[in-house]
Parts: sequence; C-alpha cells; structure tokens
Amino acid sequence: MQKQNYEDLLFSKYNIRTDLALESHQAVIEREGPPELPGVKVQTEEEAGITVTRIVVENDIGARMMGKAPGNYCTIQSSGLREHNRDLHEKTAQLLAKEIEWFFQQAELGPEDTVLVVGLGNWNATPDSLGPKVLENLMVTRHLLEMSPPELRKGLRPVAALAPGVLGLTGIETGEIIMGVVDRMGAKAVICIDALASRSVDRLCSTIQISDTGIHPGAGVGNRRLAINKETLGIPVIAIGVPTVVHAVTIISDAMNLLEGGGHDPGSSADGQPARTEFKIDPQALLGKEPSSPAPKPSVDRRQLMSQVLDPYFGSMIVTPKEIDLLIDEVADVVTGGLNTAFHEGMDYGEVFKYLS
Amino acid sequence: MQKQNYEDLLFSKYNIRTDLALESHQAVIEREGPPELPGVKVQTEEEAGITVTRIVVENDIGARMMGKAPGNYCTIQSSGLREHNRDLHEKTAQLLAKEIEWFFQQAELGPEDTVLVVGLGNWNATPDSLGPKVLENLMVTRHLLEMSPPELRKGLRPVAALAPGVLGLTGIETGEIIMGVVDRMGAKAVICIDALASRSVDRLCSTIQISDTGIHPGAGVGNRRLAINKETLGIPVIAIGVPTVVHAVTIISDAMNLLEGGGHDPGSSADGQPARTEFKIDPQALLGKEPSSPAPKPSVDRRQLMSQVLDPYFGSMIVTPKEIDLLIDEVADVVTGGLNTAFHEGMDYGEVFKYLS
Amino acid sequence: MQKQNYEDLLFSKYNIRTDLALESHQAVIEREGPPELPGVKVQTEEEAGITVTRIVVENDIGARMMGKAPGNYCTIQSSGLREHNRDLHEKTAQLLAKEIEWFFQQAELGPEDTVLVVGLGNWNATPDSLGPKVLENLMVTRHLLEMSPPELRKGLRPVAALAPGVLGLTGIETGEIIMGVVDRMGAKAVICIDALASRSVDRLCSTIQISDTGIHPGAGVGNRRLAINKETLGIPVIAIGVPTVVHAVTIISDAMNLLEGGGHDPGSSADGQPARTEFKIDPQALLGKEPSSPAPKPSVDRRQLMSQVLDPYFGSMIVTPKEIDLLIDEVADVVTGGLNTAFHEGMDYGEVFKYLS
Amino acid sequence: MQKQNYEDLLFSKYNIRTDLALESHQAVIEREGPPELPGVKVQTEEEAGITVTRIVVENDIGARMMGKAPGNYCTIQSSGLREHNRDLHEKTAQLLAKEIEWFFQQAELGPEDTVLVVGLGNWNATPDSLGPKVLENLMVTRHLLEMSPPELRKGLRPVAALAPGVLGLTGIETGEIIMGVVDRMGAKAVICIDALASRSVDRLCSTIQISDTGIHPGAGVGNRRLAINKETLGIPVIAIGVPTVVHAVTIISDAMNLLEGGGHDPGSSADGQPARTEFKIDPQALLGKEPSSPAPKPSVDRRQLMSQVLDPYFGSMIVTPKEIDLLIDEVADVVTGGLNTAFHEGMDYGEVFKYLS
Repeated sequence: MQKQNYEDLLFSKYNIRTDLALESHQAVIEREGPPELPGVKVQTEEEAGITVTRIVVENDIGARMMGKAPGNYCTIQSSGLREHNRDLHEKTAQLLAKEIEWFFQQAELGPEDTVLVVGLGNWNATPDSLGPKVLENLMVTRHLLEMSPPELRKGLRPVAALAPGVLGLTGIETGEIIMGVVDRMGAKAVICIDALASRSVDRLCSTIQISDTGIHPGAGVGNRRLAINKETLGIPVIAIGVPTVVHAVTIISDAMNLLEGGGHDPGSSADGQPARTEFKIDPQALLGKEPSSPAPKPSVDRRQLMSQVLDPYFGSMIVTPKEIDLLIDEVADVVTGGLNTAFHEGMDYGEVFKYLS
Repeated sequence: MQKQNYEDLLFSKYNIRTDLALESHQAVIEREGPPELPGVKVQTEEEAGITVTRIVVENDIGARMMGKAPGNYCTIQSSGLREHNRDLHEKTAQLLAKEIEWFFQQAELGPEDTVLVVGLGNWNATPDSLGPKVLENLMVTRHLLEMSPPELRKGLRPVAALAPGVLGLTGIETGEIIMGVVDRMGAKAVICIDALASRSVDRLCSTIQISDTGIHPGAGVGNRRLAINKETLGIPVIAIGVPTVVHAVTIISDAMNLLEGGGHDPGSSADGQPARTEFKIDPQALLGKEPSSPAPKPSVDRRQLMSQVLDPYFGSMIVTPKEIDLLIDEVADVVTGGLNTAFHEGMDYGEVFKYLS
Repeated sequence: MQKQNYEDLLFSKYNIRTDLALESHQAVIEREGPPELPGVKVQTEEEAGITVTRIVVENDIGARMMGKAPGNYCTIQSSGLREHNRDLHEKTAQLLAKEIEWFFQQAELGPEDTVLVVGLGNWNATPDSLGPKVLENLMVTRHLLEMSPPELRKGLRPVAALAPGVLGLTGIETGEIIMGVVDRMGAKAVICIDALASRSVDRLCSTIQISDTGIHPGAGVGNRRLAINKETLGIPVIAIGVPTVVHAVTIISDAMNLLEGGGHDPGSSADGQPARTEFKIDPQALLGKEPSSPAPKPSVDRRQLMSQVLDPYFGSMIVTPKEIDLLIDEVADVVTGGLNTAFHEGMDYGEVFKYLS
Repeated sequence: MQKQNYEDLLFSKYNIRTDLALESHQAVIEREGPPELPGVKVQTEEEAGITVTRIVVENDIGARMMGKAPGNYCTIQSSGLREHNRDLHEKTAQLLAKEIEWFFQQAELGPEDTVLVVGLGNWNATPDSLGPKVLENLMVTRHLLEMSPPELRKGLRPVAALAPGVLGLTGIETGEIIMGVVDRMGAKAVICIDALASRSVDRLCSTIQISDTGIHPGAGVGNRRLAINKETLGIPVIAIGVPTVVHAVTIISDAMNLLEGGGHDPGSSADGQPARTEFKIDPQALLGKEPSSPAPKPSVDRRQLMSQVLDPYFGSMIVTPKEIDLLIDEVADVVTGGLNTAFHEGMDYGEVFKYLS
C-alpha cells in the first residue's frame, strides 16, 4: 500500500483533508467511543499555554486507521502564536528546537553532520509561502564552515538551504530537484518546511507539526506528485509544517455534519475542540475488507448536495484568516528560531554570530 | 436611516454579506417569485462571454429591499478574467472604460477636470491589496500637466493617486486622509478602488462593480468606519470594486440553506448561478414594520448551530482561491487599463505616452 | 534667502551634495585651517563604538558657511550598524530615542501630544525606501487610544503614520498631502523619516541624523519641491534621516580633488575621515559679496572635464552598497526601535503590548 | 590558462571591470590605433535605434587581448530600453529571439530539446535580481508537455526554470545546484540569465549580451566561485546578461584617466561613446612575456591615490540609476519575451496559450 493511500483513505471515509496527525486521530476518536486506537500511541504535555502532543503510528493497522504513514508525529500548539508576543514566540521556538533535536537523535544525526533545509511551497502564493519565508532568516553556514579552520567549527553544523519552487513555476518536480542537489552536495539529512492544511481554523498558524515520515504526494497547500522521504532520498527526512489553510470543502462538510447530527456534542476531544458528528466507522473496512454495513444514507445525500453547490472551481478554494500575510511572517520567525537553535547545539546565538561574521 | 443599515438589514435577514448589488438583487429574487422589485431597475447585456448588468436603486423602498443605497450599480462579469488571456483582458478594460465614462457623464465631470484615484485597502494583506495594486500602473499626470504648456494638455486629464493605507497601519481613518488631501489639492471627483466580498466564489476576481454611492462603513475586505461619499467629501465619488473573498460565514450559511431546502433548485437566476434556498421575506418587514409572520424555526436553529461551530475567530475567516496573489495581479491590470483609457478620452495610449515621457 | 539656497551654495562652491550637517561642517573645515566656524557650535561624544555629534547652526552666517539652515542637527554614527549585531542595534536605538526626546523637549511637545510619523520616499526604489520601511514596525496607537478609557492611556502617546509616496507616483506634492492630513487630524508635531545622500560611502546606512529644520526641496534621495517644516505646516517638524546613497558626481569630484591635490592629507577631520582637497574659500563670498579672488583655474577645467565624461544621464547615478536592500532593512529596524521607545516614555515595550493587544 | 585569468588580465591592465565583450573590445581599441585586433572579429548592424554587435573571439591570442574566453558574443543595444516604450520593447524582444535562435543552431539544439533556464542572482538585492525576475513570466512547459499527447507538442519545447539563489543564501555553490538538477532532469542545454557589470553607465539596462562561453567565477554582480559552462555541465550553456551596475572603482578610474589625459578625445569608438584615455599596451605582454617598457609612471601614482581614497569598503560599492528597480522590471520583461519567442519556434504566442491553458 502506497503512502498516499493512507491520506486518501481518510478523505474517502470522512470527507476531511488534514495534514495533521493530531486531527486525524481526533477525527477517528470522534467516531469511536474509546480514545485509544490499536497501533497508535498518544502522549500529551502542557505547559504555560503550549500543548505538545506526540503520536506514534506503530504499524500498518494504526496507519490505516489514522490515514497517516507509520512514524513519529509531534505537534506543538499555542493559540498565542497568533498574537504578537515575543516572549511566547521565543518559548515556542525553544520547545520546537528540543523536539527537532529528539528527531535528530532518532535519525542518528551527528552534531556536525550537514543538513539541507528545503523551503517547500510557492513564494508567490501567500498561504503556501511558509517554506521560503522560513529560509529568509535561517543561519546558513555550510559555505562558511568549508572555509574555516576546524577549531572554529566545533559545535557548528554545516547548514544549507534551498527553496526549489513549485512544479508550475519550474516544470520540474520538487522531489527531482532535491534529489539532484542532495546527490551533488552530500547532505546527511533533509529538513522540509511546508505549509499544511488543517481541519480546524483554530489551528491555523498556531500549530507546528514535526514528523519523520516525509512529504507525501498531494499533501500540504501545494500539489506535489513525488514523495520526499527516506525511501526516495536515501537519507532521513524530517518534515516541519504549519497549517495555514483549511480546504473549503472540509469546512462545509464539518458544518453539514453538525447540522445533520443535530449539533449535539457527544464529548469534547482532548484539546477542547468540539467534536463534530457521530460517525460510525468499521475497523474491518480500514483493513481493506468490505464494510460490514452499507454506508449511511444521509452521507450519500450530503455528497450529492455538496457536488451540487460545489462546482469544480470550489475545489481550489481555501479558508484562511484575513491577516494571513502577517500570521505567516510571525510563525515563520518561530520556526526559523527553532531551527537555528537546534542546529548548533554547542553554542548560543551570540557565539555563533561572533565566530561567523 | 443611515446607509450602513441597508447592508446590515440584508445580513440580518439572509445571513449573507455581499458588496455586489447584483448578488443582493439575486438573493432577494431567490426568495420572491417574480424577478422584479419595486424601486429597482435591472438591465443586462451580454457579449462574447462578458455580461454587463446595470442596476438602478431608485428610492428608499428599493434600497431597503436590496440592502444597497439608492444609486447606480454596474457589474461587468467575465469568468475568463481568471484566465491569462490578454485579448479578453483588453476587451474587458475597454468595456470598463465605457462604463466609467457613463458615470463621469452622470457626475457632470468635464474632460479636463482633476480626479483623485484612491487605492483603498492593505498592501500587506493579499486579498485586500487590490486598491494599491491598481495604482501601480496608473498613468498619473497631474504634476506633469501643471508644468506643461496648455496646448499639450488638450484631451489629457490631470490624474492624481493615493494609497492611504488602512486604519490599523496609519491610526487615521481612511476617510479623514482623503478629505484632507481633497481639500488641499482641489480634485473634482474621487475614484475609489476597493477589494470586495461577494457571496459566490464564482465571482471572485471575475467581476467588476462600478457604483456612484461611495464606500460605506464596514464594506469591502477591510474595516472602515467612516463613509467616503458625496456627502462627506462634497464631490462625486465613484467606487470600483472587485470581489476577492467570500466571508466563511456566508459560505456555510449558503451550504446549510441548500441542505435544509433539500437541495432542489427552484429556478436559476439570470446569470446561470444556482439559486440557493427558498427564503420567504416580507416586504413590510423591510419597511421597518414587524414581520407579518414569525421567522421560520429552522433558521433559528441553524444560527444556534452555526454559533456553536463558529467561534469568534471564525468570523475573520475568508474563502479565497489558492492562487489569489496571481488573480489579483491580473484583474488589477484590467482595472488600471480601464481607468487609463477612460481618463484621457481625446487620446489613445501611444499619444499619451509620446506627450508625457 | 530661501532655505534651499543654503544647500545650493555648498554645491556651487564644492561640487558636493550632502544632506548631513556633519559633512557640510567637515567640508568647510577641510578648506579652512581652524576647526571653528562663526555661528556654528559642535560637540562630540563617543561611547562604545558610537559617536554622537551635535551641531547647532546659530545664525545666518553659520548657515551660509555650512549650507544648512539654522537649527539643531544631531548625528549618531556607528559603523557597526552595517553588521548584523542585535546588541549594537538595540544600543543605538536607545541612543536615538534619547536624542529624539531632547528634540521633543525643544519643541515643547507634551507626553500625550499626538505625533504624525511621515515615511517619505519611494517604496519602489530601494535606496529611497527607508521612510516607508520604518513605518512597517512602528507602533501606531492613535486609533486604539481614541477608543480606550483614559486610565489606560497613561504614558501612551497617540501615534499616527503615513507613507504619502512620491510626486511621480501620486501627482501631488508630498508637502500638500502632509498639510492636508495634518489639518484634518490635528497632530501636534510631524516626524519625517527620509533617505539621505551623503558625501562619503563610509556613512551609508551607518549614520542617523536628527534635525529640527525640516525637509528642504531637493534634499534626500527623492526630489521634492515643497519645503516640509514649521513654516509650511505650522507645527514642529523633526526630520530623521539615514544616508543610503552618494551621488556619483560627488564621488568623482572628490576623487579628482584628491588627484589634483597630489593626494596629500593636510589634516584628518574630527571623525578620522581623510580630508580631501585643500579648497580655498572666502567668507566674504559666502555672505553674498563677490569673491576676493578669481576661482582657481584647475577647478574650472575639472568641471569641463566632468561635463565631458558625465552626460546628463550620469546625473541620476547613485553610488550604493551592493547589499543595500539588506542594509536598509537593518537600519530601518533601528530607527523604528528608537521611535517606539521615544514616543511612549512612561512605559516599556512589554507593557505597551500588554495594554494594546 | 584558466578562464577567469582572461578577465583578471583586463582588470590588471586597465583597472576596468566589465562583463561586456563589447566594452573589452572598445577598451583595447582606445589604446591601440587600428580598430582591429588579431583573433577577434567584429560585425555591427543598426536598425531603428537598435545596434546589434557580434564579436567572435577566435583564439587564445584574441582572448588574452580582450580578456574574454574564446567564443561568440552578441550585444543588442538600445538606449530606448530605458523608456517605457512597449513597441520598442517588443521589437527588441524579437531581435533577441532571433539571436538566441542563432546560438541554438550553433549548439545544434533541436526544436523539441529540453532547456533549463537558470535565473542567477539574488532576488533580495535589486541590482542582482535580473535572473529571478526574468523567470517570473517565463512560459514553463516541461511538466505540461510530459502529460500532453504528442500531437499537441508539435513545435513546443519543454522548458524548465530554476532560480537557485546565491551562495550566501544557500550555502551551496550555484554551479553545484545546477549540475545536480541537470543530471536528474536531463536537459539538453542551459540558458543562464544574469545581471552584469559594465564600464559605462550609458549601457545600464539598455544592453543585452548573449554568449556561448558560460558564466565565469567572479563575473556578474554576484560572486560565484565555480564556472558554469559546457566543460562543467557537459551540455551547451548560453548566457544572457544585462548590465545593471558599474563598479565604483571603474568609474573613478575612468574619470581619473580622463583628467590625466587632458580630456581630449582621440577618436570616438564605434558606438559613439567617448573614448577615455590613451593607454599604451604591449601585445607581447598579453602573451605572457615581460612588457617591453615599464608601466607608465602616472598610472602607478593613480593607483596609490585610489587606494588612499578607496578603503576596502568602497570595493563593494556600485553605481546604478536611482530608478534601478523599475528599469530592471522593464528589461526583464524584454528578456522574458525574447526567450518565450525563441523557445517555441513553430508557434506564435496566441497558439501557445491556447494549447496550454
């Protein structure tokens, strides 16, 4: 089973598109009574307005239920990220750095191993511009360290950066470009930064997801056809994403569910979000067997209705805050801060600048 | 009755926010059987994929029904505007120029009377950046003509341009800035360019509205508190707007209506758009009297549901195409082309440039 | 004698264009032996790599010698400003804030008096974009304070901001726009931010000048025809400028002087800059009388040569660092920081944000 | 002899940095009497205000004299390019297309062979942003043609595009990135777009050079260390460049030469530019032998002077028109137009768009 199928499975079941494992998990839990899924481990920490959720999809059963490839997913949530609060931003960047370091350990990446940071997305389309924006203030060191005496390199990691653009602008699959550059320069790991789609507007620009399962075709705000992961690149790929849009289809689907379900709330999910409708899913179906009962009739009608109101043009519609330009600038700074801190463990900012400039 | 109340009236009745008179009219017609409203005249022309609709709101009764101030509204629709088709863009610009000229005649503006073009909106927020973008390629001539001998000025109009920014960036109401500048420079008319909100995603960046009723508080994508119109400025105000967003609340409301109404289509509106639900409105209510019958129960429930799913943060959500940056650039060029042509009637482009550069 | 004539006088004597009083002073001193000019007071402080020079042009005699209108000029110099050094930037911003506060005291501006910050220049021309860039992160408070209860306003100043654009983009003199807006909104002082031309490349983006003599026609990187000062606006005008270009004519003139003079250095000026040629000026000439001796022959030849090599197109050439985009971003942040600190004396940043957001 | 040495040779002899073969040729001719150099062929055509000069550097002797690698250099000059004249721009784009087609024939490139267009330079530094800007409106077709049936591809060339950024932003040599991508995607030729340095301000943004000798380390406005040419990439490299800056050192050197030489003009060069000083060069020296006479004394003094006035910081200074942002936008459009026309020979614009959109 190819990776993209995990995602498609979720969509075909729930009419929801989300790139956040946290929301996949929540969507399945909403439907099931018990808050535990086989093959999926969830752990949550909270501190000073910031929630860190770590989800491990342990095997194929969990992956099929979740619609997410097996691997590690960490989510940092802080609605304060949308406010212009420098203290909270720095605190979030520190937390992000710690989580990135954990992923580095899992990937057995040494402190002086070269990394390539890839800013995915389209700098000409605001909601898809997170990747290129994160690169703007990234401390790029590879070329400087190549020319420095070894004693100055202690604790500094060679960092390279690339914003490859999108297929429509380059005519080349993003994955092809990255493969070509990785082959030539010899990076030990790739860090992909990408704008994501979430299910809930509450998470826009207030949530950061780190995962080690790479970038799947069709995920994110843009449209990619080639996977970017350890299988295709031959080196670990760590993806860092921030939801910047909700697909309009998702929002309407959720609203309709609510209406159909009478709007009552059968139990809030872990993070205080109102649960939506009471889906009934069948675990057998997730394992590829025929559903034990026919799909519920109302759902079919709903899709007909939706296809009536939603012409093809609607499919490209996104829901986003009016001030998205500003919000992306803010959260991009937080991600850059986290990366700069995680990359050069042995040194603090001041030292780094003293040596390099 | 203040102007803004017309708009609020529409929203309170239909849960719809639209800055297009065309859509106000359509929303009322959807509810009523007959396609004619008292005090409202509608005329439509079609040519080669472009539809021009002229609506006159003749009096207060029409204004209350439509939720639009009395005056003239012209809409140019062309879904081809969203494609990169230079021929169609030029054709639309020519049509726009003709309509602007008609508004100039209504305003009794002479061919050499100075106009001030105001690009409303926030250049830092893509969907609200139409106004400043239109100014980018506008032929600004006032300072050149002041220094030219009179025989060169024949057929050239003094044009000035201002992008005042938004209240959040300036701390000054946009209306105050315009009043101050108009007083000082002595313009004979103001042309306001603004990004609008529509009800339907089909009209995003494919529709241009020209009107002579000015800019109302709360209209457009931004938030303005002060009216910009003939009463406040003392000179004619012609507003040119292009819808770039649909408020998320509107889209969900429409989807829910569809669901409740069983999705059947009671009759397409003039422009081929599917009509939505069968509202029942009471003309008496529009005139300020008590409604002759209680509001339909389902609608009340729907609002409760909506307030449940839609927290305050959702109120600032907009629906917009993924490629909005690109689309705004294209339609801004069309508007600029229409203005440049309409302003200098006696001359064609080539001549204008020959004299001025 | 009109103000612009002071500047023209300097240019006609020395072939130098500079907007910095510091450099005017230096140019005159180079020519005269003694480092003191009648009617001009100079005081210098140095601290940790930052030099603050305060020049008072006391009367018309000093003004004619300096080519600068009578008034106060303060210059903060720090070559470290061109490096990405956050500590130094903050320190410089603090110093700038103190100097601005001094100018506020001179102007008898109360702590809650409204100020209008005007970002002069052209956001489409990098070296002229300082003004609009400074506004990007300015804390604009006027509209928020208008809606706040008085007890929250304590120590907060109403700040408004405007980037009026340049004559070529608006067709309206910048001065006209500012007058119109000031009339309407009732500001108690105007702070103009502008990109300047200096004589020396060493000062580009490393020097900040504050003065209370306003903006003169023809000064700065752009071309303005109308003065912006206390006489034209009726309220105090404080100008804050940063040199971002050297006019190419100035650089060639200096190089030629050096060559003619044999390159010897008759005495370094106060700030360690190499002095250029040994001009001989006649104080009588500065007072409008005929020069007591004919202009030196070589200088005449030099101008002929220069007019031969420098066609009219050359007149619009500027000398600027390759990385000017980056340098302007950095120094704009320092100026914004200084303004934000100076404006709201009673509060620190954190508090300001807590109350306002 | 490595390629970069050709360039260094010119600089060490004349203190001039230029990326234009036309100016190298002129500089040598100024010094020699006869307008012919051994191993260099020059041909000029003029039409309606546009001058096309084709220079062939046939062998190493010519290359050493010219300071340019052996190969073909074509220059299109049109001072009208700096004016906003759409007709002239289109005419120049057509001429450029013809010249590009000639280079394609020399490179034996078939009409359906894939090309990769590389926009060199730094989008954050205006004078170095030509390359990325040219890509903005380039018709990128490779991904579309891959999915099209063969009968639609007739006469359409697969075009890919990449803006790799500069070493300081990526930490990776531009050449490395291009090699990696070319390997992966299988292009048959690379077209590099780059901003150049010229000797004369008259040529800024009014001249386009096409050559088949690739990009040399240290050439252009940016700093590159790795050659990008047929030897390093294994496929033909066609470089298209536009001068956007003059190095400040060059301008001062030229001005000083003029002063020393008494300013007389020993004979205008082919394109009407005033020749500068009368250099005396020794062809033997160019062939690597000792000069037959010592370097002229004044020149030595001049360098001392220059090193006195020009501190290291001055070395990074550029001379550029104040309105460089605007000029680059205009000339980038011309280059894009030329590329779009040259790439798809069998079709005109309209057809291209009809098939692809």
